[in-house]
Amino acid sequence: MNNLQQLIDDIFGELSSLHDEGKVADYIPQLAKVPKSKFGIAITTFEGEVFSVGDAQQAFSIQSISKLFTLTLALGKVGDGLWSRVGREPSGNRFNSIIQLEQENGKPRNPFVNAGAIAITDVVLGGYEPKEAIADIVRFMRYLSGDDNIVTDFEVAQSEQATGHKNYALAHFMRSHNVIKHEVDAVLGVYFHQCALAMSCVQLAQAGLFLAAGGKNPITGYNVVSPIRARRINSLMMTSGHYDGSGDFAFRVGLPAKSGVGGGILAIVPKIASIAVWSPGLDMNGNSLIGTKALEMLAQRADWSVFG
Amino acid sequence: MNNLQQLIDDIFGELSSLHDEGKVADYIPQLAKVPKSKFGIAITTFEGEVFSVGDAQQAFSIQSISKLFTLTLALGKVGDGLWSRVGREPSGNRFNSIIQLEQENGKPRNPFVNAGAIAITDVVLGGYEPKEAIADIVRFMRYLSGDDNIVTDFEVAQSEQATGHKNYALAHFMRSHNVIKHEVDAVLGVYFHQCALAMSCVQLAQAGLFLAAGGKNPITGYNVVSPIRARRINSLMMTSGHYDGSGDFAFRVGLPAKSGVGGGILAIVPKIASIAVWSPGLDMNGNSLIGTKALEMLAQRADWSVFG
Amino acid sequence: MNNLQQLIDDIFGELSSLHDEGKVADYIPQLAKVPKSKFGIAITTFEGEVFSVGDAQQAFSIQSISKLFTLTLALGKVGDGLWSRVGREPSGNRFNSIIQLEQENGKPRNPFVNAGAIAITDVVLGGYEPKEAIADIVRFMRYLSGDDNIVTDFEVAQSEQATGHKNYALAHFMRSHNVIKHEVDAVLGVYFHQCALAMSCVQLAQAGLFLAAGGKNPITGYNVVSPIRARRINSLMMTSGHYDGSGDFAFRVGLPAKSGVGGGILAIVPKIASIAVWSPGLDMNGNSLIGTKALEMLAQRADWSVFG
Amino acid sequence: MNNLQQLIDDIFGELSSLHDEGKVADYIPQLAKVPKSKFGIAITTFEGEVFSVGDAQQAFSIQSISKLFTLTLALGKVGDGLWSRVGREPSGNRFNSIIQLEQENGKPRNPFVNAGAIAITDVVLGGYEPKEAIADIVRFMRYLSGDDNIVTDFEVAQSEQATGHKNYALAHFMRSHNVIKHEVDAVLGVYFHQCALAMSCVQLAQAGLFLAAGGKNPITGYNVVSPIRARRINSLMMTSGHYDGSGDFAFRVGLPAKSGVGGGILAIVPKIASIAVWSPGLDMNGNSLIGTKALEMLAQRADWSVFG
Repeated sequence: MNNLQQLIDDIFGELSSLHDEGKVADYIPQLAKVPKSKFGIAITTFEGEVFSVGDAQQAFSIQSISKLFTLTLALGKVGDGLWSRVGREPSGNRFNSIIQLEQENGKPRNPFVNAGAIAITDVVLGGYEPKEAIADIVRFMRYLSGDDNIVTDFEVAQSEQATGHKNYALAHFMRSHNVIKHEVDAVLGVYFHQCALAMSCVQLAQAGLFLAAGGKNPITGYNVVSPIRARRINSLMMTSGHYDGSGDFAFRVGLPAKSGVGGGILAIVPKIASIAVWSPGLDMNGNSLIGTKALEMLAQRADWSVFG
Repeated sequence: MNNLQQLIDDIFGELSSLHDEGKVADYIPQLAKVPKSKFGIAITTFEGEVFSVGDAQQAFSIQSISKLFTLTLALGKVGDGLWSRVGREPSGNRFNSIIQLEQENGKPRNPFVNAGAIAITDVVLGGYEPKEAIADIVRFMRYLSGDDNIVTDFEVAQSEQATGHKNYALAHFMRSHNVIKHEVDAVLGVYFHQCALAMSCVQLAQAGLFLAAGGKNPITGYNVVSPIRARRINSLMMTSGHYDGSGDFAFRVGLPAKSGVGGGILAIVPKIASIAVWSPGLDMNGNSLIGTKALEMLAQRADWSVFG
Repeated sequence: MNNLQQLIDDIFGELSSLHDEGKVADYIPQLAKVPKSKFGIAITTFEGEVFSVGDAQQAFSIQSISKLFTLTLALGKVGDGLWSRVGREPSGNRFNSIIQLEQENGKPRNPFVNAGAIAITDVVLGGYEPKEAIADIVRFMRYLSGDDNIVTDFEVAQSEQATGHKNYALAHFMRSHNVIKHEVDAVLGVYFHQCALAMSCVQLAQAGLFLAAGGKNPITGYNVVSPIRARRINSLMMTSGHYDGSGDFAFRVGLPAKSGVGGGILAIVPKIASIAVWSPGLDMNGNSLIGTKALEMLAQRADWSVFG
Repeated sequence: MNNLQQLIDDIFGELSSLHDEGKVADYIPQLAKVPKSKFGIAITTFEGEVFSVGDAQQAFSIQSISKLFTLTLALGKVGDGLWSRVGREPSGNRFNSIIQLEQENGKPRNPFVNAGAIAITDVVLGGYEPKEAIADIVRFMRYLSGDDNIVTDFEVAQSEQATGHKNYALAHFMRSHNVIKHEVDAVLGVYFHQCALAMSCVQLAQAGLFLAAGGKNPITGYNVVSPIRARRINSLMMTSGHYDGSGDFAFRVGLPAKSGVGGGILAIVPKIASIAVWSPGLDMNGNSLIGTKALEMLAQRADWSVFG
């Protein structure tokens, strides 16, 4: 698989000229100041090989990619009972829209829209103190990636908290429908910290590998989830992982993936590899523009697609 | 693969007791009178083997499954220019909702909601007389399935036309935004006839095989679409093929598929097989209840999933 | 009341410089070609005096003002049973929006949004041939205004019919919910002709006088409706007569009124007068910009308001 | 006007048998425990006469009727600049819906839906401490009604605060759009206390009299607002004072009025009288069922209507 290194080197080179496109998230200063020229790609294969290029070793704010891991934690805690509180359907709306929440009595459409992710954080919180829950999530990320250096960026978390009025609106709305059981401040305290996790492409690719490998990390040997659960998480990434751009991402890339507003995307090639890309310029749906393009090229050249 | 026959025999047997569940479509008498106990499964493999059980040889009204084939025809006619007129995102709404059409200036969300399928029929019509377009579609179905006995049920088409006021509303709304170029009566004339195609599970599985085989029917040897287009059509089935139940179907079954209100579902196992099931009892989203259950069991027992 | 003539002369003079504002309806050529500089005002008082200025004698397309008169006819036919088919609430949406129609199962919000007016035309049609119903409406307008020269402009009606796809969408949607009982073509045939009625400000003011006078035209002596029904029609004009600009119109002018996309507005001063204005430039809600301004000035200077 | 006493005595008698209808607000215990049989009517005339019957002297929670008075205060503070932050259109939605707030970028539709009233409380707060603002509002109510015994019920306010998650959602949503300038907790602290004002029908009728009398209380002689502002406030009550039941209220009663979920309604007869009714059983829009009926009978028998 040496040609994988060649592949990502090529793609990295070809896309360098496009680094000015897209719009860096600017709702908090910590994200706004990230240079748009940052660009990294990392691949971890089923066999444990790692390929990377560009800024693949630099930590960035994983933001909504964290929703994938808290979903995994919540399923571990309450199993399929989770689906009584959160749906499994694409939303057809912006990631932070509150409209469907009212139309559907406070039940979020899926675990990846903000409302759904907040409801899932409420499950992860599960009676613990926010600090304990945050520590739990960090521990889980270290365990998945086999890297004890992963931390959450408190400054980012605090900025999110200070400006996160729409998330407060979503959380209070769900609380009015009893979809959220803890105090809004406690739930969002954890939520903002999970989104503030700082990880590199290499760490992320490593952390997601269990989803490419039937629920078990082939390198560490750890069993994270059952094979059927790994498939199901992948299915949710496919239908809802890119918000209201999920259909387009499936069409163009053909792999289950989860994006974050920090410019990262984690994509899964079932039975083959886990891929993380990072480029901070976003498209109008809040997904990395160059990151998506890189994955599209990589999938096509490596002939990776779940669709045949 | 002899055990495939055993598998579907088992599933057929286990689900027989559940035939009373669901609700048969009753908006036209021709569908309402179909016995809820009808149940068939057919599998056509990449290698050309056919397995079937139950009412797999009996023709039924394929309804919205036809949208898959007119999409294929339209892409052949106008290529990716199609996407300026129809979107690629899941809708988050009922299949015949008109709300998003207003919110999004008459552009349908995807090719499988009614509005999108009508817009695609407008493309297929492409300046021809409705009768010619209908004949074209029938010919295409015969070509795909290698079976010249496929016909469209004129009685069903007429009933649809007489009661299809919501489809008229959708079409007129799109015409007001110039998304539809022909007269509404002409477009819906073709649309109702394509939905009235009568096919058996065996014929359907055969017709869909090109999507499992990189765009080329391995039995007839015909090239239908390019490999990349086959993948992309599969991706649209995955994210939007079951209307507002697509996320749930992906979660449970894990295969790209398209359902019809007649109770049929066509599912694709990339590089392996094409599956058609038929059971007229529908769930609240208008998808076959037992058909979905049968596919879920089959996918699990055969270990078929695109997600790992 | 001689100063009324002075009042409207003043207002006419002061507003002449603003004739360029607003946007003339251009969806059909017959409306698009009306010069934006047209401007007329007519007042008919309870005592039978008529005051007018500018183009008050020139006929224009009354469009949605006709909905007021078909509502009166329909209430005469079926009484308060009408309210099982049409609501009485402001819509909070554009006049031709189809969204609420889906959310509320095909029942229009009020008699003045397009959907509601079409449903009311269905009641007026009441089993007759479209031609008879159109003749009935014209007769009613002649009777109300005491002027046998009122006609409907067939060219306008035909243009409306040829381009009225949104109205077709609304009508088919209501037909799918059985809110409309006749064939869509028949109902819209009548609807487009009622909207194409050509009347002058003087004729309109005369036709509306019964609403200012407890249901009885004080000049002709004809009883049109009961006093309570006149009040109720006025209430509907107040809460819904200007579509999604009704609250603003009530705030600024303080009189019940009904506007039309041809640039006309009919306003009622209970127990005092009936006013018609005409100026074709429209605001973003489709209401006459200068017409509203003229009514605001007139109401303020004459100290006319229903609100104290 | 001695017959006014007779009129309300009659109506009180006739409606006594219906006291079981409707549903008492039960979202907080303090409202839930109010007996449904409570019923009072008070009229204060332009000339200073007071007529009352039943529980007209007993204080109840005025709830949303308070929005009328904070609107008056806010207009006094910032004048028509207020309308850049709050609209003047009926909503066509439930009083606490958040949907339009998202569709219209955080700008509430009118001052009487919850969002609009919260935005107006933000204006009233205007840089002061919440306690001062609450004291200001109480002082204003005492001034308007000439009764220094009016207080706010702290227990009610606290219960509202503890359960008011939907209002928190609305406020945070507006804060995210900068429609609200103060901290959400401060604004809602004041809002919940204004809603918890406890007043009797007699006090309320007295407090509203300025709206019937061109902005000046004819009894105390105080000038509250200009005549044009009094009219405009009345217009807003007419088009939006009963939430999504405003059109129906205008149709049936024909007077500007504001309702509260405590079962009170304040109605204005321009140039004649101010009326307050109280009956805790609510209709599906949250308006007093018997209260509306009483006003409908009173308006009809006294021949009071703004519509002719």
